[in-house]
Amino acid sequence: MDTQPLYLRLSGHYRQAIQSGVLLPGQRMPSVRALTRLHRVSLSTAVEACHTLEDEGLLEARPRSGYFVLRRRRVDIQPPSEPDAGRKLDPAQYVGIHDRVSDFVAKCEFYPLLTNLAGTYGSPEMYPAEALKNAATRALRKHSQLLVSAPDMRSDSPLNAVLARRALDAGMRLSAEDILVTHGCIEALNVALRAVAQPGDTVAVESPTYHGLLQILESLGLRALEIPTSPQTGLSVEALELAFRTHDRIRAVVVMPNFHNPLGSVMPDPEKEKLVALCERQQVALIEDDTYGALGRDDIPLKAAKAWDKPGNDGNVIYCASLRKTLAPGLRLGWVAGGRWQARIQMLKYTQSRANEALAQFTVAEFMASSAYDRHMARLRRQLTGQREQMAEAIAAHFPAGTRLSVPGGSMLLWVELPPGTSAQAVFDAAIQQGIRVAPGSMFSNSSRFDHFLRISCGFPFSGAVDEALRKLAAIVAQNAPRPAA
Amino acid sequence: MDTQPLYLRLSGHYRQAIQSGVLLPGQRMPSVRALTRLHRVSLSTAVEACHTLEDEGLLEARPRSGYFVLRRRRVDIQPPSEPDAGRKLDPAQYVGIHDRVSDFVAKCEFYPLLTNLAGTYGSPEMYPAEALKNAATRALRKHSQLLVSAPDMRSDSPLNAVLARRALDAGMRLSAEDILVTHGCIEALNVALRAVAQPGDTVAVESPTYHGLLQILESLGLRALEIPTSPQTGLSVEALELAFRTHDRIRAVVVMPNFHNPLGSVMPDPEKEKLVALCERQQVALIEDDTYGALGRDDIPLKAAKAWDKPGNDGNVIYCASLRKTLAPGLRLGWVAGGRWQARIQMLKYTQSRANEALAQFTVAEFMASSAYDRHMARLRRQLTGQREQMAEAIAAHFPAGTRLSVPGGSMLLWVELPPGTSAQAVFDAAIQQGIRVAPGSMFSNSSRFDHFLRISCGFPFSGAVDEALRKLAAIVAQNAPRPAA
Ligand SMILES: Cc1ncc(COP(=O)(O)O)c(C=O)c1O
Ligand SMILES: Cc1ncc(COP(=O)(O)O)c(C=O)c1O
Repeated sequence: MDTQPLYLRLSGHYRQAIQSGVLLPGQRMPSVRALTRLHRVSLSTAVEACHTLEDEGLLEARPRSGYFVLRRRRVDIQPPSEPDAGRKLDPAQYVGIHDRVSDFVAKCEFYPLLTNLAGTYGSPEMYPAEALKNAATRALRKHSQLLVSAPDMRSDSPLNAVLARRALDAGMRLSAEDILVTHGCIEALNVALRAVAQPGDTVAVESPTYHGLLQILESLGLRALEIPTSPQTGLSVEALELAFRTHDRIRAVVVMPNFHNPLGSVMPDPEKEKLVALCERQQVALIEDDTYGALGRDDIPLKAAKAWDKPGNDGNVIYCASLRKTLAPGLRLGWVAGGRWQARIQMLKYTQSRANEALAQFTVAEFMASSAYDRHMARLRRQLTGQREQMAEAIAAHFPAGTRLSVPGGSMLLWVELPPGTSAQAVFDAAIQQGIRVAPGSMFSNSSRFDHFLRISCGFPFSGAVDEALRKLAAIVAQNAPRPAA
Repeated sequence: MDTQPLYLRLSGHYRQAIQSGVLLPGQRMPSVRALTRLHRVSLSTAVEACHTLEDEGLLEARPRSGYFVLRRRRVDIQPPSEPDAGRKLDPAQYVGIHDRVSDFVAKCEFYPLLTNLAGTYGSPEMYPAEALKNAATRALRKHSQLLVSAPDMRSDSPLNAVLARRALDAGMRLSAEDILVTHGCIEALNVALRAVAQPGDTVAVESPTYHGLLQILESLGLRALEIPTSPQTGLSVEALELAFRTHDRIRAVVVMPNFHNPLGSVMPDPEKEKLVALCERQQVALIEDDTYGALGRDDIPLKAAKAWDKPGNDGNVIYCASLRKTLAPGLRLGWVAGGRWQARIQMLKYTQSRANEALAQFTVAEFMASSAYDRHMARLRRQLTGQREQMAEAIAAHFPAGTRLSVPGGSMLLWVELPPGTSAQAVFDAAIQQGIRVAPGSMFSNSSRFDHFLRISCGFPFSGAVDEALRKLAAIVAQNAPRPAA
């Protein structure tokens, strides 16, 4: 039942050979011509397979000599340290993050930008600009009064049906009416939280977590209770269970089970299932932010935690997602499937900003309904894989000893632990003056636990300029790292 | 310094003649040919002048006999009653409006719609569909990566500059940086209120007021204190002053000085000035919703209250507006100029939904910068004037004795006082089953003071079908009106 295109099967064959050590770093790949003979494929299939492996960072092309297996220099870099799941939790906090983010934004606005390593989306060329433009133009032509007609209260969003269908990949069974389109995932998170919590309530979040979430909590007068979270396997369900026993007024849990921002971690399916069951038992809403979940592998799509929110349950998982990272960074499109809170979420969205306008929805709905969407996603995933590998190699090569790093299996964020005692804020301040933008770890927690971490994004293609920026950044890190004891 | 087009000068001349009684109802207008001779204008100018007066409901064309001054039947209908500015205020309330609006929305969704008299925008043909479509298509072509590029933090909205320039008409001096584009005026009101008030605080509002505002207050845990408001001259500044003396924790005042929804009232300029000064003295934020202000007359644009928020003041007026009623009902575009709260408002908007996407902004910015915008607005105003007159005539003709009504000088909302004791909710319930949608007065207040009012919209062109719907509505009102005491 192998329905993969030929070139993917061919690249899969050699990927395995490389990953299992059959082909060693520095060794030469069979030439393209040899591949056509060996595997009875066309020249273009062989070329495409090699490009795929190059995109993934497994091969490098050397002028006039063909493809070689890339040296994996980062074999000796350690993953970031694991948290202590049993540690005593900090008191639930609700002040301060706005100031940190304001400082970040102000400095980003002030200094001219050369290399952006803080973005959380791919570069424009990685998205289907032309196809979306054409879809938008067609929508404008077909619905000639699109821009001048107020949406009627009875009208459906054109996007809901295709979102419901695409959600099947993540194991969710939703109908169009279960879905509400929002102004980005940010608005989805806002209305989800407002639906389930009141000012003064406590919300359990991962530690570290997305700074945008901490800002939302602060702006709504909610207290963030940070739960230990593994850079590999995400939220510690065990630690959350402990938190329920020691804290009351926890009204919601917000998690990013798939390709966490900033960690890149993925919760194993059994942990997702345990988490859903735990929140259900506690009658505490589980808000899932799946912004990056689709940016993994074509062949093994990640399941949403909401996939375990089965009919037997009462719809306790509020699923939030975005099209901004996967499809259209220039549009404000996200969505929420709010389970048993859906009516309340709908009323809050109506009260906060009314229904999203139709143009953007028509545009992406048309594209997402076609197989061009699948092709786009396959290409995007492949490119990101290569960029993650290349960026990780460069960090491993340039950064001082004591740096730790994990390379996630999807998305575009690398979570870099600097040598203990290094101030990421000082590194950020020095780097931004040289036009290099990174995100300091202090933005992702109300605690100081991540003050020696950087989040480095590889959404943009790796290049000489990026490599150069990483060298400069590494030098800044080295200057700011405490001298090792003599 | 008369820069008006000739046809407008000509129609102005005859409008004055009609309004001052020089030309009486039923009398014949000079023929188009006569006009060309009398005023030395071209045939097309004369025709256009007559069309203008016809659109305004001052003339009617009789087949083969020319134009006649329209009979003004509604001379004998009274304006709605004035409130008692000295009455004791209701306790500040903060529950219940969601249920009323939910009931309204649910019934609107359930029953098929035949005639919408509850909309708060014009019909699609009244907006420049073709020009906006072309502007959007051009923007997509010119900025080929518009849909796939995340906006940089340093980039300016293309719309701000032209909004600042257009704001001069309402007497405001703003620069592009003073303005933040939002997802409609609704989002502007949300972030404005969140910037100045905390849950539990009291916000003074007009009575009645826009139901969307009451919903925002309720969803934010704010208490609405309703201040007596005249159907003619808007908020009673005197009553507000009294309220400041008797209530503490008033953190904001929200007003619609120009073409109030639902009243249609306009505050005289001296009252606006007094209001701004009062709030400044009390150090209470004044939030101005100017959604409909531009829908008055070409020759005498209404001033915003913010026009009195002079440099000497410290920026105490937060101005909120929308492009949804004036230009593009199909887009979610509004804006806010937040004075001294602007930084806080910007942070809240960022936290709530991030910056608006660029496409819609490019589209309307291009159109609003051109003189086509002025021509569109002149035409829209003229059409609305005619529709207001025709709708008012029909209501006066069909509704039972005891009905009261004022016809505002702009916008599209008629505030109809039914005979005392008539339940507007019962009228709504019966009408919606016949496919006629109106807004019952109970949606516009937490009190029961407006339970015998209807808001009837004349955003859509008057027609036989509308007239028929009004007849049916009038019959329903008559059935629901209490029998007069024998
Ligand atoms: C984890 C996470 N959630 C939500 C968002 C916001 O997404 P949107 O742009 O769709 O509002 C982001 C964007 O960076 C994110 O990283
Ligand atoms: C007075 C008033 N303010 C605000 C709004 C909301 O405007 P927007 O559609 O721009 O959010 C409306 C819409 O009906 C309104 O009548």
